[in-house]
Amino acid sequence: MSETVQDGILLFGDSITQGSWQPNGLAQKLAYVYARKLDVINRGLSGYNSEWGLSVFKQILSPHNASYISHLPKIRLLTLWFGANDACIPPSPQHVPLSRFESNIRELITIITTPSSAYYSPVTKIILITPPPVNTYQRGAELAARDPPVALDRTFETTKSYAEKVGEIGKSLNIPVLDVWNALYDAAGHDEKALSQFMDDGLHLNGEGYEIAYNLLIETIKTHFSQLHYDNIPMVFPPWAEIDWANPGPLTARKFAPDT
Amino acid sequence: MSETVQDGILLFGDSITQGSWQPNGLAQKLAYVYARKLDVINRGLSGYNSEWGLSVFKQILSPHNASYISHLPKIRLLTLWFGANDACIPPSPQHVPLSRFESNIRELITIITTPSSAYYSPVTKIILITPPPVNTYQRGAELAARDPPVALDRTFETTKSYAEKVGEIGKSLNIPVLDVWNALYDAAGHDEKALSQFMDDGLHLNGEGYEIAYNLLIETIKTHFSQLHYDNIPMVFPPWAEIDWANPGPLTARKFAPDT
Repeated sequence: MSETVQDGILLFGDSITQGSWQPNGLAQKLAYVYARKLDVINRGLSGYNSEWGLSVFKQILSPHNASYISHLPKIRLLTLWFGANDACIPPSPQHVPLSRFESNIRELITIITTPSSAYYSPVTKIILITPPPVNTYQRGAELAARDPPVALDRTFETTKSYAEKVGEIGKSLNIPVLDVWNALYDAAGHDEKALSQFMDDGLHLNGEGYEIAYNLLIETIKTHFSQLHYDNIPMVFPPWAEIDWANPGPLTARKFAPDT
Repeated sequence: MSETVQDGILLFGDSITQGSWQPNGLAQKLAYVYARKLDVINRGLSGYNSEWGLSVFKQILSPHNASYISHLPKIRLLTLWFGANDACIPPSPQHVPLSRFESNIRELITIITTPSSAYYSPVTKIILITPPPVNTYQRGAELAARDPPVALDRTFETTKSYAEKVGEIGKSLNIPVLDVWNALYDAAGHDEKALSQFMDDGLHLNGEGYEIAYNLLIETIKTHFSQLHYDNIPMVFPPWAEIDWANPGPLTARKFAPDT
C-alpha cells in the first residue's frame, strides 16, 4: 500500500483536465515542478459536464471526520474546470442549462467551503478555470469529417457565456478565476480561426494552449496562494546533497507542507 | 481530503525516475494511458542511491495490518530503478559497493514479497529496471564545463556491472527485468558516443530514451502481468457515453481494478 507522504493538487474537470497528462499538458507540467512536494491527482473525466461531475465529486473526497483521514492526502489546491461540455447545444445529452451549470459549480464549491459540509476542508484553496473558447471552424471541420458526419455541437458564443458565468461565480465568492477563455482569445488576437494554434480539434488544448493555462495557474498561485508555489514548499525527503553521508539513515520524511 | 478511488503504479528510484514527469518521460506517458484507471505515484529521489532509497522505502509504504489500509491505494505495480548513482566511482559519497547494491535491491524486494514483512503486499507486481548506460564522452564534457570543472564521476564499465547485477537479481528471483541498459546500448548500435541521441547529459534520459524504456515497460506488463495492461483495466468512473442520460446519478465508482 502506498502511504501518503505528499499532499495533493486535485484537478477536477472534463477531458481538458483528463488529457492534461499529455506532454506539456497542465497536469504533466504541474507534476514536474511539484515532484517530491505535492502529488498531482488528475480526476478529469472526459465528456463529463458539471452535472455528472457533481454526481461523482463526493466519491473522490473523504468526509473530514473519517477515522482514517490523517492518512489521506490533503487537497492543498483544487481546480474546477467545467463548462466545455455543459455548453454543448441542445439536444446534446451533454448540455446543461446555464443556470443549472452555475448552481452545480456553486455546489461543488460549497461542498468544500461550508463548515457544515461532511467534506469541509479549510486547507483546500480553490481556483476556478473557465472553459477555452471553441474554434467552431476547426471543430466543425473535425465533426464534418467523421463517418457519418456530425453537426456542429457547440457555438462560440454559447461557450463564451459559460466562461463568463465562471468569472461571475468567482467574483461573487472571492475565488480566483483562471480565465483560460480570455487568455487564449487574447493570444489569438481576438480571431477565432487563429485559435487553431492552441488546439488540434477546436475544442481540446494542445501543448501551446496548456502552456498558457499553466503559466496563468502558476501566476495565480503566486498571487493568491504564494505558500503553495512550488518554490515555497520543501521536498518531503531531503535533497541528496543535504544528506549526512557518514551517517545517513534513517532519512526522516518531512511529511507534508505546512498548513496555512 | 482526496479519497482513494484508483490503485497505483509506484515508481521508486533516483533522478531518472523523478525526472520522468518531463514531457515524454516514463511517468508522464504512464499517467496518460492509465488515466481514470491507475494513478502514477512518482517517488523518484534525485541523487539517491539504493542505500538512501532503502532508508526511506518503508516510509512510502503502509503496514498491511494498519487499520486504515483499505483507504490507501494498493500498489499494483512497483518499479525499482536504482544503480545510476550507486555506480558512481569512489570517493563519491553516492558510491555503493556492488555487493551492497545487490543486498539493498534484494531487501527492497523482500520488504514487499515476504509474508512476515510488515509491508507484505502479494497484490504488488514488481519490475526491476537496469540503470541506463553512461555516455562518458557526454557526461565528461558536461562535468568539465562546470565552474569549477568536475572530474568524471562514472565509468561506462562500472555502470554496466550494476546493470548486469540487476539482471542477475531478477533472474534469480524470477522477477521481470526491464533492461534499459541493453535496450539503449543496442539502439545506439553498441556505440557509446551514439547514446547521445537518448540523453542530454550522458546520464539522464531524454524523451527518446524514455520512449524506449516506456515501450519496454508496456511490453513487459503485457507479457508478465497482462491483467495490469491499461487496455485490461476498466475506468473507475464510467465513460460518458455509457451514462444513462435520462437518469444519470449517482454514478457509482467501480473502485479499483480486480485483484489478481
